[in-house]
Amino acid sequence: MVTDSQGSREMAVKARSASRALQALRSEDRVAILNRIADSLEQHEQQIMAENAVDVAAAGGTISDSLLQRLVLKPNKIHQLADGIRAIAKQEEPVGRLLSRLEVAEGLVLDKVTSPIGVLLIKGGKEATRSNALLHQLIVDAVAEVAPGVGRDLIGLVTSRHEIDELLKLHDVIDLVIPRGSNQLVSYIQAHTKIPVLGHADGICHIYVDTAADPAKARRVCLDAKVDYPAACNAVEKILVHDSLVGEQLNSLVKALQDAGVTVHGGERAAAALGLPPAPSVRHEYSSLDVTVELVGGLGEAIDHIHTHGSGHTECIVTEDQAAADDFLRRVDSACVFHNASTRFSDGYRFGLGAEVGISTARIHARGPVGVEGLLTTRYLMRGTGQAVEKDKGVQYTFKPLPLS
Amino acid sequence: MVTDSQGSREMAVKARSASRALQALRSEDRVAILNRIADSLEQHEQQIMAENAVDVAAAGGTISDSLLQRLVLKPNKIHQLADGIRAIAKQEEPVGRLLSRLEVAEGLVLDKVTSPIGVLLIKGGKEATRSNALLHQLIVDAVAEVAPGVGRDLIGLVTSRHEIDELLKLHDVIDLVIPRGSNQLVSYIQAHTKIPVLGHADGICHIYVDTAADPAKARRVCLDAKVDYPAACNAVEKILVHDSLVGEQLNSLVKALQDAGVTVHGGERAAAALGLPPAPSVRHEYSSLDVTVELVGGLGEAIDHIHTHGSGHTECIVTEDQAAADDFLRRVDSACVFHNASTRFSDGYRFGLGAEVGISTARIHARGPVGVEGLLTTRYLMRGTGQAVEKDKGVQYTFKPLPLS
Repeated sequence: MVTDSQGSREMAVKARSASRALQALRSEDRVAILNRIADSLEQHEQQIMAENAVDVAAAGGTISDSLLQRLVLKPNKIHQLADGIRAIAKQEEPVGRLLSRLEVAEGLVLDKVTSPIGVLLIKGGKEATRSNALLHQLIVDAVAEVAPGVGRDLIGLVTSRHEIDELLKLHDVIDLVIPRGSNQLVSYIQAHTKIPVLGHADGICHIYVDTAADPAKARRVCLDAKVDYPAACNAVEKILVHDSLVGEQLNSLVKALQDAGVTVHGGERAAAALGLPPAPSVRHEYSSLDVTVELVGGLGEAIDHIHTHGSGHTECIVTEDQAAADDFLRRVDSACVFHNASTRFSDGYRFGLGAEVGISTARIHARGPVGVEGLLTTRYLMRGTGQAVEKDKGVQYTFKPLPLS
Repeated sequence: MVTDSQGSREMAVKARSASRALQALRSEDRVAILNRIADSLEQHEQQIMAENAVDVAAAGGTISDSLLQRLVLKPNKIHQLADGIRAIAKQEEPVGRLLSRLEVAEGLVLDKVTSPIGVLLIKGGKEATRSNALLHQLIVDAVAEVAPGVGRDLIGLVTSRHEIDELLKLHDVIDLVIPRGSNQLVSYIQAHTKIPVLGHADGICHIYVDTAADPAKARRVCLDAKVDYPAACNAVEKILVHDSLVGEQLNSLVKALQDAGVTVHGGERAAAALGLPPAPSVRHEYSSLDVTVELVGGLGEAIDHIHTHGSGHTECIVTEDQAAADDFLRRVDSACVFHNASTRFSDGYRFGLGAEVGISTARIHARGPVGVEGLLTTRYLMRGTGQAVEKDKGVQYTFKPLPLS
């Protein structure tokens, strides 16, 4: 248990040291650790479910229903989690992968290889304290059992808000923060640390229904993007409609949403034109069965609106006009930009990444849905035979790309 | 001229808006802008040299000789700069490059493409104020001439320390800070912003001379790494020597360094064993013709020493023992790790990157010497025909990688 700033620093420094020991293991040993963790989770399924039940009971009444739903472990969840870990164990070794190879000069070769990013601070909600403590214990037990040289310091367990605040100051020893929880949690962390944060506070996704939209596709995409999981960050919050569609086509889209239980609010122009209740603000994340509809004069205005009021998460155009689609995909400056597909596809699993670490709306490092690749950095390795630079006269530069095999 | 925080924000917001217009241009138009800039630099060479001379005269006596030397524009420099810009214009278009393509489901394809990182804050030393102002004018003139729709707001000119402080607060509109200047400048910026900083404050590079080192290679690599350009961040600051080499082999290495004008300091063990003057600290960046020599008991101790006292920039092992070299390259957790090559090779030009933006010792985003690639992020583009997620039952996932052509 860590209680002061010195202790927090020590926890992070020990984690880095253990992570280097982990990196120095043979690939087979890291695979063995992952499989041991998967087995252990399944062996302790009943205990994990029991701790989760205690967490859920304690949280009842203190958090929203949708957060409570996210806290409850579904019956098959532990088995799925174990399978996910086994799938990662079967993947190609992510560490030390050769990304490029260049002959710099005769007998002097430069490789770029993947490398673990370092020390992560992963912060979930305090509502999962009991289940997290048990999961932590099972995982470090598995590590210590398979690789005693790595040891239990690989993963520290943070139990108090005070410790989190201390850890958020350690930008010299922690490389990345991954908050998992409410928008408020993410915003708090972003405001209180200089460590890069992988994640997003807002998910204000837009769909632009173009003048050349297929009405059936527009209806299908807009409905799914709102109704499939309204609290998700990739749910649509604003539908921008080309004003040429005012009349039957727009009315039928609004009616389809209303029939599905969605409360349709109007942006400034749409509220006036259609008599809809006004939206609370021009940039509003409902996270519920509510959506804003607004009118725009065309593609350029839609893109400007998205750039001004969006959160850079996921935006979609519905159109049969290929040139308009190409323009939208080229110009919209968000992590994910779609043509004729629901914004709900913006997700690590649906992007084929396997386990999802988070969705980033930051523009450096990983962006969009992030899988294991987002936890990697690179190193340059150079192999020579005693070469010196000598004012760039020591070698004759060739800069010849070499095959990766 | 920007004078208040509102003005700084406006400058950054306008730069992002102009950068989006730049991104929306055809590739040929961006090439034309670069070539226009190169031509203009050459046409105004005399004026640039004159402004630089004024800067140099004003700085004389206020900064160190080595910084003053870096401030002086060498006779051929403008021509080299113009050629470098033309070389970038000839490179393959970096924006919109396809990195991966995946069939998510039938008729639903996900692309990952490169995209500009966004708004950069580049901060040089105040000593170059006059030359920077002229360069800024020439560049925005060229942009406005070739692409009036992008305009002069693409690049703001920051003239006061107050403005820098205001801009460093704008982590919501500025994506990356690139400081070019002294260690003090970089440290100041890192301490005063939450915007990611591309760069490094320290360059404390190590060479480990293994028991199986070829003495001639050790001498050549160590000498070059210190003498070629002692003020560079990739110059060696500490040479770790296997203690089995104490005696003639180490003495001859120390003598070679001393003969080249290097003052050799001793770490704790080496100072006692060899009677060398003690090093000022265990982690010291001389940036001059000084170096620390220290004894270590073996490879593992050398790696631990580097991890404990290094800055993660560049480290080298000199050895003929292939297994020791492989171990060092696999385990040392620095941006650049070399075998039998001078640390001075750690440089964008020598790594074949073309123009160097900086050298990063951060572990997220770009690491090591950074070229144009370090100024890119990615976007995901998805093209469908109206697909919906519908609790993951709306499509049948195939996750089939597709060729990039």
